[in-house]
This record gives sequence, C-alpha cells and structure tokens, in this order.
Amino acid sequence: MATVISSVGEICRNAKRASRTLAQIDGAVKDAALEAIAAALNARVAEVLEANERDLRAGESHLSEALLDRLRLDQARVAAIARAVLEVAALPDPVGELIEGRLLGNGVRLSKVRVPLGVVAVVYEARPNVTIDAIALALKSGNAVVLKGSSSAVHSNAALSQIAAEAVAEVGLPDGCIALLADGGREEIAELARQKDTVDLIIPRGGEGLKAALEQSATVPVIYAASGNCHVYVDASADLEQAQAIVINAKTQRPGVCNAAETLLIHRRRAGEFVPQILAALGHAGVLIRADEGTMALWEAAIKHGPAGAPADDGAGVTVQAAGEEDWAREYLELTMAVRIVESIDEAIEHIGRYGSGHSEAIVTHDTAAARAFQLGVDAACVYVNASTRFTDGGEFGMGAEIGNSTQKLHARGPIGLRELCTSKYLLEGDGHIRR
Amino acid sequence: MATVISSVGEICRNAKRASRTLAQIDGAVKDAALEAIAAALNARVAEVLEANERDLRAGESHLSEALLDRLRLDQARVAAIARAVLEVAALPDPVGELIEGRLLGNGVRLSKVRVPLGVVAVVYEARPNVTIDAIALALKSGNAVVLKGSSSAVHSNAALSQIAAEAVAEVGLPDGCIALLADGGREEIAELARQKDTVDLIIPRGGEGLKAALEQSATVPVIYAASGNCHVYVDASADLEQAQAIVINAKTQRPGVCNAAETLLIHRRRAGEFVPQILAALGHAGVLIRADEGTMALWEAAIKHGPAGAPADDGAGVTVQAAGEEDWAREYLELTMAVRIVESIDEAIEHIGRYGSGHSEAIVTHDTAAARAFQLGVDAACVYVNASTRFTDGGEFGMGAEIGNSTQKLHARGPIGLRELCTSKYLLEGDGHIRR
Repeated sequence: MATVISSVGEICRNAKRASRTLAQIDGAVKDAALEAIAAALNARVAEVLEANERDLRAGESHLSEALLDRLRLDQARVAAIARAVLEVAALPDPVGELIEGRLLGNGVRLSKVRVPLGVVAVVYEARPNVTIDAIALALKSGNAVVLKGSSSAVHSNAALSQIAAEAVAEVGLPDGCIALLADGGREEIAELARQKDTVDLIIPRGGEGLKAALEQSATVPVIYAASGNCHVYVDASADLEQAQAIVINAKTQRPGVCNAAETLLIHRRRAGEFVPQILAALGHAGVLIRADEGTMALWEAAIKHGPAGAPADDGAGVTVQAAGEEDWAREYLELTMAVRIVESIDEAIEHIGRYGSGHSEAIVTHDTAAARAFQLGVDAACVYVNASTRFTDGGEFGMGAEIGNSTQKLHARGPIGLRELCTSKYLLEGDGHIRR
Repeated sequence: MATVISSVGEICRNAKRASRTLAQIDGAVKDAALEAIAAALNARVAEVLEANERDLRAGESHLSEALLDRLRLDQARVAAIARAVLEVAALPDPVGELIEGRLLGNGVRLSKVRVPLGVVAVVYEARPNVTIDAIALALKSGNAVVLKGSSSAVHSNAALSQIAAEAVAEVGLPDGCIALLADGGREEIAELARQKDTVDLIIPRGGEGLKAALEQSATVPVIYAASGNCHVYVDASADLEQAQAIVINAKTQRPGVCNAAETLLIHRRRAGEFVPQILAALGHAGVLIRADEGTMALWEAAIKHGPAGAPADDGAGVTVQAAGEEDWAREYLELTMAVRIVESIDEAIEHIGRYGSGHSEAIVTHDTAAARAFQLGVDAACVYVNASTRFTDGGEFGMGAEIGNSTQKLHARGPIGLRELCTSKYLLEGDGHIRR
C-alpha cells in the first residue's frame, strides 16, 4: 500500500479502478479473501500488538483511561476481530441478488439486481477494530474501501490494514482495494469529502465535530451515523412487570450507545402505580431521574405515604430532579433518564415526534389497537412493541455485522449492513426491441 | 390554500403536520382523493384554461414558440392530465408493502415495511402538467407535496393546485397536504432547500442553473434528475439489422430526452460493413455525425468505391464531421451522434466508464458472453442487451408514472416512481423481550 506517498485524490482514483474489478469478482473469491485476512491476523498478531503498543505509549500522556482501553488490543481481541471477519464471510453475498424482475408487456425482460456502490470511505475514531470490520463489510459487498482512522491509532490501523491488504492481494483482489489515508487530520477529511468522481459514499463514525466538518465540505454522499434520543412509552394497558424489565434494559444495559432509551413516557392512568415502582428500580440501578411535575408529585407522595401495591421505598439512593424543557431533547448517553406523564397515546406519539431523533421507539402495551396506532404514528427507523430499544443492531436484526446506524430516510434507514453498502442496476434484455 | 400569505417555513411546517395524518390514511381514501382530483379537473377545465390564457398572454412577448407550446393547455391536454391521475390511482399502494421480514432467533418478530417519506418538494419549470403529476405521485405514496413551479406558469399552476387541494379536502385529506409556493424566484428555492426539519426530499426538474443553485444551498436531501450521455455499442457478433433499428430508435425517436443515445461505438470487426450502412441511415434520418478517424476513413472510402453489401450512398444529405475529444462527453439532446470504432468490448466498456453519465447503455450482440461482460462491466442505472435505451422510463418499466430519473447511486437509481418516494421502517414485536 503506497498510502504514505500518495495524495488523497490518487488513492481514491486507485480505489475506483480496483472497484471496477471487484464488482465482477465471484463471491467465492471475496470469501476466500476474507478468510485470508482472518488467517493473516491470527498469524501476525505479534506485529499488530507491537504497533498497538506504540500507539498506547504515545497516548499514555494525554488519553483518558477509557480511551486507552478502547485503543488497546491483546491476543484475545485480535482473535475476536478475526472471528468477526469469518462471520462476515459466512453471510450471503448481497451482490447479484434479484431485487425485482418481470417480463414487460413489450417482451423486454427487466431485472433489478443489487450491485456494489463502488468505493466506500469510512472515517472513524479510536477503536482499531473498525479498520478490519470496515474492510470485511466493504469487500464482502464488492466495494473498495478507503479508511481514515484517528491519529491516536495510527500505528495499529496501519498494521491491520497492511496485513489485510497483503492477504487479499495473495488471493487475487486488485491492488488499491484497501487504502488507509495517512494521518493528515481534518484537512485530509475535507479533501476526501470532495472526491465525488471516485468516492461513492462516506460513512463517518465519530463525534459531532466530525459530522460538522463533513456537512461543511462534503460533495460526496454521506450517511451520518445516528444520534438516538429513544423513548419507552408505558401505555394504559401495559403489563408493568414487562414495562419495568424493558425500561431498565433499555436504559441501563449499555447506556452509552445510541439505542439506549433516554426518556420514559407513562400513561396517566398507570402513573400512580408505576411511577413509584419504576423510579425506585431505576434509582437502585444507579439512574438519575429528571422528572416532570406530575411524576415528581407522585414520587414525593410515595416516599411520604407508601404507594398502594408498589414496592415500598423511602427514596434512599434514588435521586429525582425536576426536568426542564431541554431534558426532552437530550441524548444523555449515561445513567440519566427523563420521565414524563402523558394523558394519552396521542400525546406520547406527539412528544416523540417533537423530541425524538427517529432512531428507536418502544411502546409497552397489551392493547392491539394501541400497538397499531404507535407503529403507524411514530416516524422512526425502528418501532418496538413490548421489546427493548436495545435490539436495534445489524447483528441482532440478522443482517450480520453493521457499519453504523442511519436515522436518515434516504437510501438506508436503521442498521447499515451489506445490502446498504450496495446500489441497484436495471438489466434489460430484448431481441431488437425499439420504442414505438 | 393560504399559500400567498404564508412564509416558506410556515408552508413546510403545515405540510409536515399534514404528512403525519397522510401517513396513516388508508389506500382507498388516497385513491378516492386522486379520483376527486381527476373529476374536478374535468369539471373545472374552463377555470384552468382561463388561467393558462393569462400565462400565455404574459409570455407572448418574451417566450419562444417552443416554450409557449409547452406552457399551453387545451381541453384535450387537461383531459390527458386527468387520465394520468386515474392511472396513478390504479397503481398498487406502495405504503405498507412488506420489504422483508423474519422471526429473530430471540423470538422478536421483525418486519421491514415501506412508509412515506413525509414531505416531498418538487421544483420544476414550464410545463403545468407537472403540477398535477407531482401531486398525484406524492399523495399516492402518502406524502405531502410542496410545489415550486416557474413564474411563466404561475396562474396555470395556481389554478391546478387550487382545484386539486379543494378536491382532496372534500375527501378528507388534511389541510396543507398540497402547497404551492408563491412566485418568489431563486431566493425562495434557496429557502425551501434549507427546510431540513420539515422537508424530506427535493426533486428538481429543470436545467443546470436550478441544480447549481440547489447544490449551493441545500441541506434537504436532493435527488437530481439525470443527464444522460447514453451509448449504443455494436458488438462483433451483432445482427446489423437489429443494430441499425436500435441505433436509429435510440438516437432519433425523441432526441431531446435523457434516454436518447449520444454516441455509437462499433467493434472494429464489423466497422467495414456497418459504418457505411449506419451513417447513411442516420444521415437520411437527419442526424449530423461526428466521427473518429477510423469511421471517417471508412465513410470516405464507401462514398468513393461503394461498400460491399452496404446500401449504396453517395453521401448526399449525409454530413460527417471529425469528432474531437469533447464530443465523447457531450449530451447533444438533438439530432447529432458521435461515432467511434473500438478494438474490443473491453475498450467499449472503458469508453462508457470514462465518458458515460451512468444513465442507460446498450449492447447489440448475439454472443451471451459479451452480453454478460457488458452487463457486469458497465456501471449505469440501466444496461440493455439488444434493446433501445429509449425504454428507460417509469411507465415503460411497469412502475406507473415517474417523477424523474436518477443517475445517483444512493436511494433511487433509475426511474423515480412511487416506491422511490417512500422510505422504510422496521417494526419489531416482542413479549417483554430484553437484550442480554
């Protein structure tokens, strides 16, 4: 990989050239290439760990312990990365899938088939495993891949992509199909974002600063990874045991990810019973509560008098604060949850329409009409009935791995898996047919 | 419609509100709304023609005869517009279609269903029939529609959209689901293009100036209507009678549209026979030819000596000029065709990859291996074997009407019909399922 001496434009042109060959390669060859990557990672793990060690040493002085942990590789983590590549290899090939087809009235046969996009660029931060995940998903879907990792993982990313590029070259994949941009910072990202003649899609995986930089400069299409202001709505007919399990899971199982719930909406008719129960449970799970007035009043009454049928709790260890307007719009990404009482399912749907980010929304209900109204009325990528929002994930959805999650409505909505890295092509076959 | 007194932002917010209701309306009600539009157009044709007359009078002094003809409505044209609405009503409802579905391993049921985008804006020039076409396609696909027509058709568009809005209101569609922006020019388009909180998609139907204006300012997603630099490649194994019919059809049946062919590529092995035949045929059809050196030499030899087996022609009425590099990249949109001899199918594919716009490309061949190589190797929305490029059209493809044609790779590639005006939503149903 001549990545260090090449310009961004040259790397992308090489990737485009490689993509033309890749688009025509049999699925078996692509799978062999992924298997070769996995084998090479296991065989050359010492090189990977040595490079990673250099990144860790360089980062020690200025990176937080959390960031260092995300950056750190060991034998087990490298083996897990290699296993993930084999899992992608085992997925069905999205390329060539017939999306629809018919014989037109005039006798021309029409087939709409899935084909690779061409060149996919992934811009990401910290975690070096994304280097290999992105390579595996891009190659499996027949795309060349241009990678731009973070400067803190520069040696790890270089070692990983080098090993992958050498492995796929031996299997016969074209030169240039895996490229890692040198560490040129934001300026280089802006340059990448302007390569619209060669790059077909950019997927940024990183913070708001990265998104803002791309929104400023991108002429290449970008699918922005989602932020998730997700809700759980506990309907009048909810099973409150189920509701509690779902709320606790959606909020606490992994609070730092985009499919974690941020706001709990409770139907007025169940609030007297459910507010004391769920606030106690959340509080005991370490969740700080930001409550509207009605919730606050019920909680205070419960502490004083002990609510009928709810687990007794004197509020010890449970922190409930008054919520402000800004709480409804916030993606906490930590152990904080906003709680609000609504008068009806319509008010719940309206609240979600106003404050939600269109990611993952859940209703807990035993009423089929309410379930139907919620699924129809909530405009989001994923709408759940009686299940946790935490399931929004390419792996959980049976799509294999994912490279991000989209809350956009165009092209890809929800997990971005192999199919979402493809486009389509109409193939038409006649026998001298002309239009009259 | 309070279109004149409202701001762009207010109109779009109203449309968004209407779209929430529209998304939940049954298909039968949407069809009734379209039928009401068709009936109202026929009943109120006098109003439409009166408004159109005002536009025609205002345009007489500065519009070309061709533009005036595009602007002109009469009883028959209005009846045709109404019939087209009924054809859209008769199409299957794209909303609610199950795209895929499965029971996940954990027992959660996953369904990916088609849902409306929300608010679709269409910016268009001249032809007032687009007003009704866009309304019909948007409503059928469950979207609210914001229209921005050209100033030359301001009265026609106002009358047509007013009649449609009144008709659908009687059937019970929500207020604001059809909106026409007042004639505020480019500034208004720029404002529309920034309404990303309310407008889900803009489809521009107009010239390069409009596209450039949107590329500058748009934060709303835009699907640009395609330009088409389309090719017909006559392979070594082609049936030359078929080839001639396809070339003449692709070039001359309607030269001003994007699926007309602009360049003819001929395999070297058939050039001696085919060049004199096709140049004579094109010339007699009124086509000016811009030829590469090899083609030019064969043509000159044919005029002098008379080619073996080709129709005799002395060149009278056939104009052949030397092509320059710029000819390969041009979309003539008139009776001009570039002609080039290639050494192989690979050279044809490479030429198309270099100069094509990814719209519609055709091979004429009797060799299955060549057909396969061309379909795999050409990166375009529509790839034809032994058929004219002129078939690229939503109606011809059996998609019903279309609102444009996309050469983008994301979201929609090829004709933009009802499905392309939709997005998808994952519906997930469990029974208290939480993620472990």
